[in-house]
Amino acid sequence: MKKNYTIYAGMAADLIHYGHINLIIKARKYGSLIIGILSDEAVKSYKRDPVFNYKQRKLIFKNIKGVSKVVKQDSLSYKKNLLKYKPDYVIHGDDWKSGVQNKTRQEVIECLKKWGGRLIEVKYTKNISTSLVIKKIKNKKI
Amino acid sequence: MKKNYTIYAGMAADLIHYGHINLIIKARKYGSLIIGILSDEAVKSYKRDPVFNYKQRKLIFKNIKGVSKVVKQDSLSYKKNLLKYKPDYVIHGDDWKSGVQNKTRQEVIECLKKWGGRLIEVKYTKNISTSLVIKKIKNKKI
Repeated sequence: MKKNYTIYAGMAADLIHYGHINLIIKARKYGSLIIGILSDEAVKSYKRDPVFNYKQRKLIFKNIKGVSKVVKQDSLSYKKNLLKYKPDYVIHGDDWKSGVQNKTRQEVIECLKKWGGRLIEVKYTKNISTSLVIKKIKNKKI
Repeated sequence: MKKNYTIYAGMAADLIHYGHINLIIKARKYGSLIIGILSDEAVKSYKRDPVFNYKQRKLIFKNIKGVSKVVKQDSLSYKKNLLKYKPDYVIHGDDWKSGVQNKTRQEVIECLKKWGGRLIEVKYTKNISTSLVIKKIKNKKI
């Protein structure tokens, strides 16, 4: 596979777990991986206060093998960053086909069409998410 | 600096935070970095049940830039792994000079002497530890 392709993955990137790593392992095979990390405000609007602030989350993710660049995604919408970086691919877990993220997904597909980009959806890593990690910590005597 | 040096860092490696990354950034400058991750039993004996099991923690840490190898450290003592890998350096935060870890530290120094290895102690990243992250999650409404 040509290595000058770029692939974009947007995420909150809070409390890194093996679900993130599984996604990154798949993504980096396509070329240069840009991670769009949600700003603190965007995480708050979406779920909760982030455990780590943007700067801290950025430091961690830019040190993952295969991550070429970390950029700030300042809203749940990918549009601004996609228009800026025009990636050949966007990668996301297939969990967003239903639920609140579906509108975001549609917008990504529409946007990518402008330059022939493609959305890649990978099987979501089961039983793991930052919300579940937080729940586990809260419920367990650890 | 010669790149065929090896450097060993032992850690629980649970809930990765920017303190881990800061240590790894310093460590990888010395050469091939081997991370010794505590087994689930060793974490339990030391602090608490790990949030992520050994296999999950290994997957995350072997995907950090500059980590050449992840091996299991099955007790708080570094001795077994040090005798096996004979690293040129061991790196640790300077926080273990006092408290319960001091005995482990002394053993590391004694062990390294056998092949002229050196202990490198770096300034501990303030206000961050897995225990603090857990405390923050438990106390915050997130």
